[in-house]
Amino acid sequence: MRCLIDAEVALSVTVPGRVAFTLAAAAGADREELTLSDDFPPEIVEFAHGTRTHVFDLPARDFSVRYQAECEIKPVKPQALTTADLAIYTRPSRYCPTDRMGFAMAEFGGLSGDRAKVDAIVGYVHDRMSYVVGSGSPVDDAVDRLLAGEGVCRDFAHICVALCRVIDIPARYVSVYAPGLSPMDFHAVFEAAIDGHWYVFDATRLAPRQSLVRVATGRDAADTAFIATLGGCEIDFRGTGLFVTAEPELPEDDGSELIPLAW
Amino acid sequence: MRCLIDAEVALSVTVPGRVAFTLAAAAGADREELTLSDDFPPEIVEFAHGTRTHVFDLPARDFSVRYQAECEIKPVKPQALTTADLAIYTRPSRYCPTDRMGFAMAEFGGLSGDRAKVDAIVGYVHDRMSYVVGSGSPVDDAVDRLLAGEGVCRDFAHICVALCRVIDIPARYVSVYAPGLSPMDFHAVFEAAIDGHWYVFDATRLAPRQSLVRVATGRDAADTAFIATLGGCEIDFRGTGLFVTAEPELPEDDGSELIPLAW
Amino acid sequence: MRCLIDAEVALSVTVPGRVAFTLAAAAGADREELTLSDDFPPEIVEFAHGTRTHVFDLPARDFSVRYQAECEIKPVKPQALTTADLAIYTRPSRYCPTDRMGFAMAEFGGLSGDRAKVDAIVGYVHDRMSYVVGSGSPVDDAVDRLLAGEGVCRDFAHICVALCRVIDIPARYVSVYAPGLSPMDFHAVFEAAIDGHWYVFDATRLAPRQSLVRVATGRDAADTAFIATLGGCEIDFRGTGLFVTAEPELPEDDGSELIPLAW
Amino acid sequence: MRCLIDAEVALSVTVPGRVAFTLAAAAGADREELTLSDDFPPEIVEFAHGTRTHVFDLPARDFSVRYQAECEIKPVKPQALTTADLAIYTRPSRYCPTDRMGFAMAEFGGLSGDRAKVDAIVGYVHDRMSYVVGSGSPVDDAVDRLLAGEGVCRDFAHICVALCRVIDIPARYVSVYAPGLSPMDFHAVFEAAIDGHWYVFDATRLAPRQSLVRVATGRDAADTAFIATLGGCEIDFRGTGLFVTAEPELPEDDGSELIPLAW
Repeated sequence: MRCLIDAEVALSVTVPGRVAFTLAAAAGADREELTLSDDFPPEIVEFAHGTRTHVFDLPARDFSVRYQAECEIKPVKPQALTTADLAIYTRPSRYCPTDRMGFAMAEFGGLSGDRAKVDAIVGYVHDRMSYVVGSGSPVDDAVDRLLAGEGVCRDFAHICVALCRVIDIPARYVSVYAPGLSPMDFHAVFEAAIDGHWYVFDATRLAPRQSLVRVATGRDAADTAFIATLGGCEIDFRGTGLFVTAEPELPEDDGSELIPLAW
Repeated sequence: MRCLIDAEVALSVTVPGRVAFTLAAAAGADREELTLSDDFPPEIVEFAHGTRTHVFDLPARDFSVRYQAECEIKPVKPQALTTADLAIYTRPSRYCPTDRMGFAMAEFGGLSGDRAKVDAIVGYVHDRMSYVVGSGSPVDDAVDRLLAGEGVCRDFAHICVALCRVIDIPARYVSVYAPGLSPMDFHAVFEAAIDGHWYVFDATRLAPRQSLVRVATGRDAADTAFIATLGGCEIDFRGTGLFVTAEPELPEDDGSELIPLAW
Repeated sequence: MRCLIDAEVALSVTVPGRVAFTLAAAAGADREELTLSDDFPPEIVEFAHGTRTHVFDLPARDFSVRYQAECEIKPVKPQALTTADLAIYTRPSRYCPTDRMGFAMAEFGGLSGDRAKVDAIVGYVHDRMSYVVGSGSPVDDAVDRLLAGEGVCRDFAHICVALCRVIDIPARYVSVYAPGLSPMDFHAVFEAAIDGHWYVFDATRLAPRQSLVRVATGRDAADTAFIATLGGCEIDFRGTGLFVTAEPELPEDDGSELIPLAW
Repeated sequence: MRCLIDAEVALSVTVPGRVAFTLAAAAGADREELTLSDDFPPEIVEFAHGTRTHVFDLPARDFSVRYQAECEIKPVKPQALTTADLAIYTRPSRYCPTDRMGFAMAEFGGLSGDRAKVDAIVGYVHDRMSYVVGSGSPVDDAVDRLLAGEGVCRDFAHICVALCRVIDIPARYVSVYAPGLSPMDFHAVFEAAIDGHWYVFDATRLAPRQSLVRVATGRDAADTAFIATLGGCEIDFRGTGLFVTAEPELPEDDGSELIPLAW
């Protein structure tokens, strides 16, 4: 199966400085290219789990950045949970304030086995949360949106990650390209460790998990912003275009299978 | 049925000023007396729903205040909901931030009829919250404790009040004397309006509702503190003693009946 | 001095039920009229401090409500603070969570005299907060907006009210008509008790205080919404028009004077 | 200058599992030993900036762990800020919710130069916050404690870190051994990047910075807990003993110098 990605982001730099784009497929790709409309060389910074950020030092002007890639998606073995993973991905984080969410232990902690617990959490979030485009604010955390009862992919992932961590299941946030998502947009899902290995889940159930392409992996959305300014740089968005497709055809995902996210 | 109340609070005034005690039965009582250990005259301030506050202007010294009363509890007709009640008791308040809790509409709003909705809320809170003496902090609101999954009577009442208001059922917080509560303590319950009349509920289910004696009624615990300082006065607590009994015998309450709180 | 008010609100009722309009001048007025586009009779509910709410029971249809009044504004003596006021308006409330804001005691508590303290608070908020039309969300409280550093009149008033209460100065929130405000809009200010009497303050300094007309008075914006739905009613706003002028001319307010709000 | 460390933590494991101790000096040390009262072998996990965590898999029983070290503290050159550092340490984190704290830009953003900004932040926090042993709760973040106006070393560091990040100055949280601290305790300070290099600051001003020994470095306290349970393990603390001294004598720190934290 192949995933074809064509992502473009147009922006105006209003105060010059460094802009960080985290748009590249984590695995690298068979063919990929990240280009800026003007000829500025990126510094490529690597973070954990293959996350790659392209940093450009830009003057005040309009720019667009385009990422094109063709990724072969092969069945992979699930990654093993390391002790460092266990320590990091059970901690509270900015948008997953697990230390305030003890109720989840009573709600889910008594179930038998990691998989039953994670399945229960995904079902709980899917059933209770309404997917509402444009809802919420960038400062909202998992608690805010769980209480509001509605959110976007970011919120579904944050809530699941947080609930898993409360019951001692390591969980992390992953930004992805998602063939089949409608309307097409940047997407976010989460990985949880089941019996010592990482698998991918998506409580929105809006795109099949088999054809997801990992971009950035981290504690929550604070670690995976597809665009961020560094230092005093300021930008305005002027628009995004995103075309992501799977070939030869979109897989089916009834949500019941354990699926590792391709590395 | 009679309720016998003997409540004593010992305190040290460290910075002189006015101290407000809201300890008196709302209905008045057949016989009642509120006395301060020293001979200072109270100003008695009346608030809505029979709430009475005794305010003393005190020098820096140790004091104790004692409230003794004998209240006849007769079956009463439920109070009618006024339009002013409807407006006030569906608003968000300090410890019941209903405007952040939209999830409750999906969870409970679809049930048929006020009573089914309130019963579902009481059951939900009773089942999910652990009653843990000493848990939480005075600044915690309904959201904080619902997320924590544990709390005291104040928290059970706040959460129920908040959930009711989200689904447009007027609800208010009531501090009470509660014969049969074990260990004996100042208690808090809530009233919700069912089909236009006020009934009392208690998601802790720790004391029968038939023998409760109303003290203060308000939006939440901010309106009903049994002791508060006014202005720059400062106090230290030195202890409380509380004896509350029902005669001739404690009623039974299986939680299923609609019970109006005696006025 | 006279204040001429012409306020109109257009709305669609989408789920029928009761809608509460709190648009009328608290003092009543020499001539005033509140009319609905269709002929439905209001129930007029009175709350503390002259607040009057017109409640209409409306079918699903488009409506507009119009309030026209001509108010004589005469110099008044400041209202005396009652003990009940003192108790109520030093409590924390939904948007003024004073029990979380102890820092204000160190910041302002040491100043000498009520007036110096309130002046310092008004100056602090005026200097630190940017007035940004459209900023914030209806669920934001004084803390959220103080931290954000920007807000609207509601937020300036909430923050001042909260800071006053922390240092034991009674403070309340007042929705007003404000001749001279630009752009014209519904406005909110606050009253604080200085040496036992209520005076009006406005940290936005966007309109003179002498020609303000009190509408609703309460703990915070939860008590003063100019439109609210009661019960399960649902509405959409379709627009507002507001013309408020002072005659014969707009007074000047350099912010330094103690001014009681006309009753 | 030498720093002598002798730290002991006694605990009861009540539910068996893995316990992570982050007690070791980041630099390693000339001589160091981390021993458990019983003979269980640790897994040593390394995180960024030299942070080392000793993980033991323990049965339900009483244990104590002891860390003894002798560290030579030599003047060091400040570490250079990397682009990855810049990206990570300007992000919001669990206890430093910078995206809610925009006010800091108006308060500190206009000052000229990184050093003036950080000095202003340290002074602001030192002046406004009271150091109160035992204040706050583990779930409190920088915002909660800034509003409360009091806290412990963790809170002083969180607030400074958060304020720096809002104004685009990278800042990170560091747990340290602090000779001269009184009463002796585990301590926390922060590092900020001034003109591209990391320096250490301490708004508590309770111990000289020259003799601090770095333990764990991260985004905030979530990354640096000296003891944490991994998975479903549960423990009770039974006590800690901590002796930390500098030889030949404690340096003086008037707070005015730029000091890099020894690596």
